[in-house]
Amino acid sequence: MSLPRIAIDAMGGDEGVRTMIEGAALARRRHDRFKFLLVGDGTRIKAALETHPGMSGASEILHCDDVVAGDELPSRALRRAKTTSMGLAVDAVKRGEAGAAVSAGNTGALMAMSKLALRTMPGLDRPALAALLPTLGDNDVVMLDLGANRECDARNLVQFAVMGAAYSRIVTGRERPRVRLLNIGTEENKGTEDIQAAYDQLRAADNLAMNFEGYTEADKINRGECDVVVCDGFSGNIALKAIEGAARFVTDLLRQAFTSSIRSKVGFLVSRPATELLKHHLDPNNHNGAVFLGLNGVVVKSHGSANAKGVANAVEVAARLLEDDITNRIANDLGKIDTQGFNGK
Amino acid sequence: MSLPRIAIDAMGGDEGVRTMIEGAALARRRHDRFKFLLVGDGTRIKAALETHPGMSGASEILHCDDVVAGDELPSRALRRAKTTSMGLAVDAVKRGEAGAAVSAGNTGALMAMSKLALRTMPGLDRPALAALLPTLGDNDVVMLDLGANRECDARNLVQFAVMGAAYSRIVTGRERPRVRLLNIGTEENKGTEDIQAAYDQLRAADNLAMNFEGYTEADKINRGECDVVVCDGFSGNIALKAIEGAARFVTDLLRQAFTSSIRSKVGFLVSRPATELLKHHLDPNNHNGAVFLGLNGVVVKSHGSANAKGVANAVEVAARLLEDDITNRIANDLGKIDTQGFNGK
Repeated sequence: MSLPRIAIDAMGGDEGVRTMIEGAALARRRHDRFKFLLVGDGTRIKAALETHPGMSGASEILHCDDVVAGDELPSRALRRAKTTSMGLAVDAVKRGEAGAAVSAGNTGALMAMSKLALRTMPGLDRPALAALLPTLGDNDVVMLDLGANRECDARNLVQFAVMGAAYSRIVTGRERPRVRLLNIGTEENKGTEDIQAAYDQLRAADNLAMNFEGYTEADKINRGECDVVVCDGFSGNIALKAIEGAARFVTDLLRQAFTSSIRSKVGFLVSRPATELLKHHLDPNNHNGAVFLGLNGVVVKSHGSANAKGVANAVEVAARLLEDDITNRIANDLGKIDTQGFNGK
Repeated sequence: MSLPRIAIDAMGGDEGVRTMIEGAALARRRHDRFKFLLVGDGTRIKAALETHPGMSGASEILHCDDVVAGDELPSRALRRAKTTSMGLAVDAVKRGEAGAAVSAGNTGALMAMSKLALRTMPGLDRPALAALLPTLGDNDVVMLDLGANRECDARNLVQFAVMGAAYSRIVTGRERPRVRLLNIGTEENKGTEDIQAAYDQLRAADNLAMNFEGYTEADKINRGECDVVVCDGFSGNIALKAIEGAARFVTDLLRQAFTSSIRSKVGFLVSRPATELLKHHLDPNNHNGAVFLGLNGVVVKSHGSANAKGVANAVEVAARLLEDDITNRIANDLGKIDTQGFNGK
């Protein structure tokens, strides 16, 4: 099957046009069937393409002058959806000129533009933002929602579980990913009424493509004991950032400690391979590709500070979502919930 | 001034009677004015006291047979408040036979018993659970609420800020601790309506003993940029556990990495002082002493797995809260909010 081309917002992200183009080129060196629609300043895109000769034949450029700023309010950016590189990349998916869009720009603006242009899938109440986090296990864990929905009811959480499982299947290869709800305890009486109701519904549903394994707590997210962690957007955002901050805290402490004495410095040099391995595991570029799930189209958010390898990972995530036809998979699973009557409150 | 004695639930915690008594003895070696009411199995307490000769003269034993189990439902434990070591330790505070209680037992049960026996302070809606977290700065940061209140309104959050600042003053010595609200962004339009309303109220209050510095995000908690982080109990529990889990994740990765090659092993041995320093910073025993703030009496929760040093820290936290007369300090500050009319919704 031929893969639809991928629209790249060449102007988003802190690292600029060259990094976005280099990332796309890197992804294409791994999979030469990738084709791109590169959206943004045509002159700068052409200049960036010069160092990647293989890319020209696989790319079309869609020129525009306008760019969404990193700190711009989503409501403001939304008004310029038809003139900005981000808006036009998403619009290309809507018009069928691309199968997926990848942007490293303003997350809130990308979410707002994607929702407006692509609309929420039939049968789904709200899309969600899902990301991959590193674990001690063999696979990354999918966590959602991460901020698209501040408050969520039981029905939202059940739908997030279905979408997260569909994403995890692509990441892990498991037909029935292990799904858990994030809570502040593992006993049945813990958490809000909405979380408890979502628990009951997922426990009762036996025809979904997942193994629902109950609650998990935030200290278990990185253990690799489950494949999908489901939560409301506020809690998910708090958990994600707390994990990022704590990992940086520990590595900062470690750096301080290693530079505090000559003996430690020598130890540090000798054990360099160990600290490189640590860096590899924690480097967000190796886990790049946050995804808006539940829209009529695939949109992948690359980290604002991702390097070319990170962008390449985001492009590959977009391609795998297309290959796996995630939108139809989710629609199919959502239908199964409906059949069981769980979709009414 | 003579310090009121401290009631110790000798039976709570995973490490048993000997660790609780050893912790109390350790605290007393640092401050010989500490006196104790030791609550639990008299025979085992006496046996544990034999190895700490200085303790006998400073301790009274209150015997009881009943113990709250670690996994017991709080509602069930509450019925045995008058017969368990935990319940009797809290009751001693209520009856004025001790100034503070320290327990390493079941957190939910301790909270329920403390609320029932000591009651919430006048002028306060809800007590909160506060803990100390390590930072890159000179002082630990106070975070609250950590699970006592699943959902909180603006008024709760403002009151938590007042209580957290009073606790932080003891920890940091600052007359005006730097206080921030936990949110999912730092822009004014981020977060729930309750968080935004709490922001407005704290911003407008200029006679409170704190510097309110706006929002913070979960990745900044350990940076040492503020002294108090205020949040609802659900988010706080998620953030606290996410930080614990991520710190363990990184140190587990590090351990794996350091044992993956001979060269790394040698490096690890040479740099032992560095990894010891890391361990020191992350060891929860060095940050032990979660506190129930807002009750008519001082109750300190020691980590279930705390060692003697951790228990000693919890005892010292209890003593400092008494010395600083935290209950009156909080009452005084809550009164200032009332005066400004912020206490009405």
